[in-house]
Amino acid sequence: MDISDWRRKIDDVDRRMAALLNERASAVIEIGRLKRNSCMPIYEPDREKDVIANVQRNSAGPLRDLDLAKIYERLLDVMRSIQGHEMGADSASSGRETELDSRMED
Amino acid sequence: MDISDWRRKIDDVDRRMAALLNERASAVIEIGRLKRNSCMPIYEPDREKDVIANVQRNSAGPLRDLDLAKIYERLLDVMRSIQGHEMGADSASSGRETELDSRMED
Repeated sequence: MDISDWRRKIDDVDRRMAALLNERASAVIEIGRLKRNSCMPIYEPDREKDVIANVQRNSAGPLRDLDLAKIYERLLDVMRSIQGHEMGADSASSGRETELDSRMED
Repeated sequence: MDISDWRRKIDDVDRRMAALLNERASAVIEIGRLKRNSCMPIYEPDREKDVIANVQRNSAGPLRDLDLAKIYERLLDVMRSIQGHEMGADSASSGRETELDSRMED
């Protein structure tokens, strides 16, 4: 395989990754709705650790635990922001903002 | 579905994501080897834009383009670091370092 073959493979992986990321985001939004409707605490600091540990435990490499943690820290920032803005969507007429400032956990 | 059901679904998505991330990393390492062996330029700034555009084009939501770009910026940082360290591995006896300082593109 030459470089363009490997890049086509990467592009295919990325398309599948986009589908998984959106599947994950949809679940995070559903959790946000349930939390709001049942008055559950929305900030659960141990959950993010469990999420990263699950990914690390199920990784066969070559990515190391630190690599996965770095990727997932950003991924969880984005997911937290989505959940926060979706949870506030019913009481706000403006669209979702871009800041990664929410403190909600998935 | 209650919150624990959604979280089980997220954990399953994350396991599949770990597999895809490692599949991607393996391809990035192979590209690094090919670049080194064929004296090709290793920094190709347009490739990262193409990668993110591919992901955005193949996303059905709810993640927005900006959300995907934020996640992929970090993901590409990590992949670039892996490729750089793997490319230098033959001439260095020490293990891969942790800094995201490489300038190689996948």
